[in-house]
Amino acid sequence: MKILVLNGPNLNLLGRREPDIYGHQTLDDIMDDLSAHALELGAEIDTFQSNEEGALVNRIQESIDTVDGIIINPAGYTHTSVSLRDALLACGLPCVEVHLSNPYAREDFRQKSLTVGACIGQICGFGGASYRLALQALVEKLR
Amino acid sequence: MKILVLNGPNLNLLGRREPDIYGHQTLDDIMDDLSAHALELGAEIDTFQSNEEGALVNRIQESIDTVDGIIINPAGYTHTSVSLRDALLACGLPCVEVHLSNPYAREDFRQKSLTVGACIGQICGFGGASYRLALQALVEKLR
Amino acid sequence: MKILVLNGPNLNLLGRREPDIYGHQTLDDIMDDLSAHALELGAEIDTFQSNEEGALVNRIQESIDTVDGIIINPAGYTHTSVSLRDALLACGLPCVEVHLSNPYAREDFRQKSLTVGACIGQICGFGGASYRLALQALVEKLR
Amino acid sequence: MKILVLNGPNLNLLGRREPDIYGHQTLDDIMDDLSAHALELGAEIDTFQSNEEGALVNRIQESIDTVDGIIINPAGYTHTSVSLRDALLACGLPCVEVHLSNPYAREDFRQKSLTVGACIGQICGFGGASYRLALQALVEKLR
Amino acid sequence: MKILVLNGPNLNLLGRREPDIYGHQTLDDIMDDLSAHALELGAEIDTFQSNEEGALVNRIQESIDTVDGIIINPAGYTHTSVSLRDALLACGLPCVEVHLSNPYAREDFRQKSLTVGACIGQICGFGGASYRLALQALVEKLR
Amino acid sequence: MKILVLNGPNLNLLGRREPDIYGHQTLDDIMDDLSAHALELGAEIDTFQSNEEGALVNRIQESIDTVDGIIINPAGYTHTSVSLRDALLACGLPCVEVHLSNPYAREDFRQKSLTVGACIGQICGFGGASYRLALQALVEKLR
Amino acid sequence: MKILVLNGPNLNLLGRREPDIYGHQTLDDIMDDLSAHALELGAEIDTFQSNEEGALVNRIQESIDTVDGIIINPAGYTHTSVSLRDALLACGLPCVEVHLSNPYAREDFRQKSLTVGACIGQICGFGGASYRLALQALVEKLR
Amino acid sequence: MKILVLNGPNLNLLGRREPDIYGHQTLDDIMDDLSAHALELGAEIDTFQSNEEGALVNRIQESIDTVDGIIINPAGYTHTSVSLRDALLACGLPCVEVHLSNPYAREDFRQKSLTVGACIGQICGFGGASYRLALQALVEKLR
Amino acid sequence: MKILVLNGPNLNLLGRREPDIYGHQTLDDIMDDLSAHALELGAEIDTFQSNEEGALVNRIQESIDTVDGIIINPAGYTHTSVSLRDALLACGLPCVEVHLSNPYAREDFRQKSLTVGACIGQICGFGGASYRLALQALVEKLR
Amino acid sequence: MKILVLNGPNLNLLGRREPDIYGHQTLDDIMDDLSAHALELGAEIDTFQSNEEGALVNRIQESIDTVDGIIINPAGYTHTSVSLRDALLACGLPCVEVHLSNPYAREDFRQKSLTVGACIGQICGFGGASYRLALQALVEKLR
Amino acid sequence: MKILVLNGPNLNLLGRREPDIYGHQTLDDIMDDLSAHALELGAEIDTFQSNEEGALVNRIQESIDTVDGIIINPAGYTHTSVSLRDALLACGLPCVEVHLSNPYAREDFRQKSLTVGACIGQICGFGGASYRLALQALVEKLR
Amino acid sequence: MKILVLNGPNLNLLGRREPDIYGHQTLDDIMDDLSAHALELGAEIDTFQSNEEGALVNRIQESIDTVDGIIINPAGYTHTSVSLRDALLACGLPCVEVHLSNPYAREDFRQKSLTVGACIGQICGFGGASYRLALQALVEKLR
Repeated sequence: MKILVLNGPNLNLLGRREPDIYGHQTLDDIMDDLSAHALELGAEIDTFQSNEEGALVNRIQESIDTVDGIIINPAGYTHTSVSLRDALLACGLPCVEVHLSNPYAREDFRQKSLTVGACIGQICGFGGASYRLALQALVEKLR
Repeated sequence: MKILVLNGPNLNLLGRREPDIYGHQTLDDIMDDLSAHALELGAEIDTFQSNEEGALVNRIQESIDTVDGIIINPAGYTHTSVSLRDALLACGLPCVEVHLSNPYAREDFRQKSLTVGACIGQICGFGGASYRLALQALVEKLR
Repeated sequence: MKILVLNGPNLNLLGRREPDIYGHQTLDDIMDDLSAHALELGAEIDTFQSNEEGALVNRIQESIDTVDGIIINPAGYTHTSVSLRDALLACGLPCVEVHLSNPYAREDFRQKSLTVGACIGQICGFGGASYRLALQALVEKLR
Repeated sequence: MKILVLNGPNLNLLGRREPDIYGHQTLDDIMDDLSAHALELGAEIDTFQSNEEGALVNRIQESIDTVDGIIINPAGYTHTSVSLRDALLACGLPCVEVHLSNPYAREDFRQKSLTVGACIGQICGFGGASYRLALQALVEKLR
Repeated sequence: MKILVLNGPNLNLLGRREPDIYGHQTLDDIMDDLSAHALELGAEIDTFQSNEEGALVNRIQESIDTVDGIIINPAGYTHTSVSLRDALLACGLPCVEVHLSNPYAREDFRQKSLTVGACIGQICGFGGASYRLALQALVEKLR
Repeated sequence: MKILVLNGPNLNLLGRREPDIYGHQTLDDIMDDLSAHALELGAEIDTFQSNEEGALVNRIQESIDTVDGIIINPAGYTHTSVSLRDALLACGLPCVEVHLSNPYAREDFRQKSLTVGACIGQICGFGGASYRLALQALVEKLR
Repeated sequence: MKILVLNGPNLNLLGRREPDIYGHQTLDDIMDDLSAHALELGAEIDTFQSNEEGALVNRIQESIDTVDGIIINPAGYTHTSVSLRDALLACGLPCVEVHLSNPYAREDFRQKSLTVGACIGQICGFGGASYRLALQALVEKLR
Repeated sequence: MKILVLNGPNLNLLGRREPDIYGHQTLDDIMDDLSAHALELGAEIDTFQSNEEGALVNRIQESIDTVDGIIINPAGYTHTSVSLRDALLACGLPCVEVHLSNPYAREDFRQKSLTVGACIGQICGFGGASYRLALQALVEKLR
Repeated sequence: MKILVLNGPNLNLLGRREPDIYGHQTLDDIMDDLSAHALELGAEIDTFQSNEEGALVNRIQESIDTVDGIIINPAGYTHTSVSLRDALLACGLPCVEVHLSNPYAREDFRQKSLTVGACIGQICGFGGASYRLALQALVEKLR
Repeated sequence: MKILVLNGPNLNLLGRREPDIYGHQTLDDIMDDLSAHALELGAEIDTFQSNEEGALVNRIQESIDTVDGIIINPAGYTHTSVSLRDALLACGLPCVEVHLSNPYAREDFRQKSLTVGACIGQICGFGGASYRLALQALVEKLR
Repeated sequence: MKILVLNGPNLNLLGRREPDIYGHQTLDDIMDDLSAHALELGAEIDTFQSNEEGALVNRIQESIDTVDGIIINPAGYTHTSVSLRDALLACGLPCVEVHLSNPYAREDFRQKSLTVGACIGQICGFGGASYRLALQALVEKLR
Repeated sequence: MKILVLNGPNLNLLGRREPDIYGHQTLDDIMDDLSAHALELGAEIDTFQSNEEGALVNRIQESIDTVDGIIINPAGYTHTSVSLRDALLACGLPCVEVHLSNPYAREDFRQKSLTVGACIGQICGFGGASYRLALQALVEKLR
């Protein structure tokens, strides 16, 4: 079982960027933990981060035949990308949207997700643990 | 460690009500599974379901000194209850909002949650598993 | 054939409350007439009034296996209750929404019904006669 | 006692047009049933169907002195015609709005009726029976 | 002269709940002060707190013949309850809306009161003193 | 100099329809007065009333080469007719919009005119005198 | 018969300010013409221009007992002044709103007049002639 | 193969009406070209223009059994006619919406089409060629 | 202890202006009563009325070092003046907003106060008594 | 004559992605057909697909001096890209927007195109044929 | 070269009013610096501050023939004054809008400027330096 | 002192693209002038233009440790990019937003900037000079 984990713009700055909102772990820390957790669950993760909307869409397309599901933190593209939504729908794979923070407790423009409607569910607000929970949910769904 | 698990209106009909949206498990099934899962995590759950907004507020208030955190599925009150939001804020406990289905893929009036802003996070779309994931997240947070 | 007739908040004040809008009949007068009318139609009614949203939801749930249809005047909850809407959908019974007055000729906040979308139809503006017409419609539908 | 029954655009296609929404009866079937029902109630109906907004307005005006009340299904003009609203108000007769389907369970642009505010009430969702119920309501009102 | 003083959801937590917004006095402290103040004004108060919308509506109805006016702090129901608004209008008594804090300096969803339109006036922002001022205003009005 | 005076739906009921809003003069009274006034101004009027949107459009088109300007009271079509707006623009003649009452002091849906943007100006609120003033304005403009 | 003619901000620049919108006449030219026209009608005008909202309010108040009606071109205050609206209502005199241009054919923020609801009618789009027509309408009304 | 080509209000003025927006061809020119083009495609067209909404609805209904598809330029009714939308849906024929100009580059009220949702597609902005392209598309679809 | 009492536009007409909304007392009557009441409370009031937004701002600024608090009835400027809001915030003094009537039971444009967010609280609906209650609240606050 | 044909995000998945909405042809099939059709029309096409907004903008810029017109299916960027709109305007070439499906019959967020205002016209709803029709329209325009 | 520098309401409190938002410099400090800077640029400034909307309009009008350009900080009138916008347009001089703070990072009601559309540009967020930069921009423009 | 100057989509077309809005200077001209101006101010600039949102985000991230501040003209991404906003906030550097034209005098969709809230200020409307003024402001801020 292979899961693609996509991270959107500015998540590569984690640990450095506004730590009061996003915490002190780096993205590598979180992905390493997630990888170890995946092993315990008998799964494998493939991670990709990009600041480019198109590159994220490309990676979803390239993974259609090689992964069983997708975990995506679209970050800033959550609220503005019809292209990512279309790619998630087009790939036909089960997807889970995650966020480190709780966007519903933040600015107005973060209240609306264009991508969540193309996912089976959403997990937000638990920092790095949001990914671990999403992985469990997805693995369980796929079995 | 004790966690209050609150279930809002019509959730007592689970397994019977619109199974294509909400699945075939009853609420008792889900709560029993959750209780067993809590034991594994070294925690204990206290469950309460009511169709009455005020009864849910009452239960939150009564639990202030006896539980360490709250998992709440406000169901129909998610979108209309300032009173529940105020109660969650007033109790000062860490709260997690859960939903069986993904409300963001449903009717317009289900897109806005008044309660999620009073929670540390939200988990939605995974059926009964939404509760288990929320429990893990909350237990981890409390440690 | 048994029909549950639900009356929402403040309808117990009928005959006393703003008679220029709601008329001079009491709720008991209307329900007695309706009961007599039901007999003529070979049906029986079961009536319930409550000012509590949750109590109305409870009564809908308790009637799932004992009645054949529901007539509901949600009164003030018409415009604010997702919980009642969910209960009407969940019970799987044919429902008819009634109003004594014509809400579309009144304040802006009375223009939108959250519950009517869960009903087969709506009858409004005919005072106590709204109930009698709803009963006929429902009985005819059930045959 | 004479009642004008007005039917708006496309209702002449009934029985043919989208039967899953509007049913299999033709407008003539419905009007014939209604005529028979009127006789039982000691009333007489005068029916008119037109696809033209102005023709409907004309007929309302011509009937001011010859009928005692109006039943109107404005169909597509329900949501767009200030002229029909003004004509209903101007004629000074008691009017009832009817719909075959429940518009509140359909598209957004069918949620707002410009004409219902000029009527004493509204009956919707009961197919051809909506007319019979309206006739009863109107006859009762006129007595 | 007898005045009903109604307190809505979560006000029973006063002194404990978010003291930076709502102050350190308990609801009992405030009601005791108010009772003493009532005596000085030659009036008597009857107090009731509930977290349940329906219970508040019930109490208003039960008081129609036994009190001369109502002071109400609808708390979280201020912004969502058509039922309370209808009850205040239906009782036919002079009512005053009070708030401890100034809702107009808080979140967007607290900017609109459904109940204030059914009251003669509103007093907000003065903590426990809001009630004393409301009592004076009401007593003066009733004389 | 020839002026077309167009009157929209329900204006033929003037003197009969809601006299507290529209006054006691009939449309013929007003048009006769206007005709006499036109003579004094050295002009001639051609009047046309219809309840049909298309008939009003037709008349505008037919008058392109035979009149020098248009006075129009679009009545209920003021707020809903893009077709009339397009016809007024297409005819290339100077047009003046008139209303008997002041629509800006009435219902919300009467606050927006689709046609006034195709006119040189608007005169409203003066009953039958609105037409006389419009005629003067138009004659003066044409000289 | 005495009429107060009020001119709002920037109208003193007429003839100089954006002549393609407002024409080449100065305000003095227009007022002189209007004064002459008043004489013919057996009336007298009293004119006042100010760029200050409060000064316009003051003048309305000072004229309550000395004039029989008001013609007002509120210019930029048309769209923003509740104070002027209140003053026009408070004075109890018949008022007419005039505009040189047709505001409904201009920017969005000029589409809404706060003051017109306090007037018997409005005349717009005829340049200086708007005033003359308003004077006629007002004189006729006062007789 | 027979195609009904419907032209809405003011299109009969083509060549005369605002040529900078709509071009210099008359509607007859365009229909003649279209007829010739139909012959080449082995089809036949039946054309109808009316300024009346109801007449357009009538023609759609009359053509249900005699044509194979519809090309419609609803002109001003594009943005306001639920009746036309309902007629297009009710006829059950494939329809194509055409516009001479590009409405999305014009006024705000031209941005929303009520009729396009009842069509298989839309072609706009190419003057008379819009019709030819629509004809090709429809003929191809029907084969 | 010195309190500035500011009265906005048209309040100088009190007793004369729309007495059904604003009562029969003149502003001088109310201010005299308030002055007497201040003496009893050991305070002194300084009153100022102006129809000019800028003059009210000026007076707030001039009072920064000479008064201990402000009672303001911004009247028509309540809904439109960012300048007054800024002045109240800038002066750094505790302010109370008062209204004679209950604006929340009136027109839509009176539902939003720009100034109340710069005040500690608001008292509305009690006629002249609104000021007395505000004075008490402010004096109590300052002690 | 050379035409640039731009295809936006996820169109490379055609034939695979949601075939009930987008059909079974691949993008290569459609482009090959289009190329052959171009030859018949005496034109040549240059095709480019990218999932990246910036890459599409780049290609538009690079083609300014080498192509005579642009056909663009902006796909998901239709509704969100001001950059593409600006690029289309900046290149100064005639552009045509195409869509395979009819976006006006789909989700709300697909109702608004930011790019169509920079094009001469739009063709949507005809699957691969949308491109062929657009090519004809563009070639005809360029001649 | 002479530049009018206009300062709106409450700016005379600078250095005293909310220094965390507006800084510690007084308006005189800023204007003195600006005057010195003007000399270096070979220009001269004329400064005027008023809390009155009308006085600011007056000053703009009086300067039409004596200055070459205007720098304006409309402060609270930025968001509410059509009169100031009209005055800036009417004077025909190049204008620059300045703000000390960045209004786009503040309350919602500060996001919309009515005056900026009448200016060649806007400079905001740099405290007193905003004026110096505006002066440079304007002087450069005028050369 | 080193400043990163970022230019968004289509700015590389400057001098060619719509010169009536954006002027005749090329981006290289403007950047060369800016570089020379930087030297005078004792600073150095590093310039980057891209049509790709992600590439702009990348460049901001890469510059975190090597520059002291950022000047950004986000062009088309101003109104649509949460990612750029997040990157500007994440980098923790002082940023200034510039525009060549005054967006507030253009289309509706250019009225809202998502990025300006992450900047200390904004300078718009002065063509190439906007950059020079921004550089001065930033250098002064950094000292």
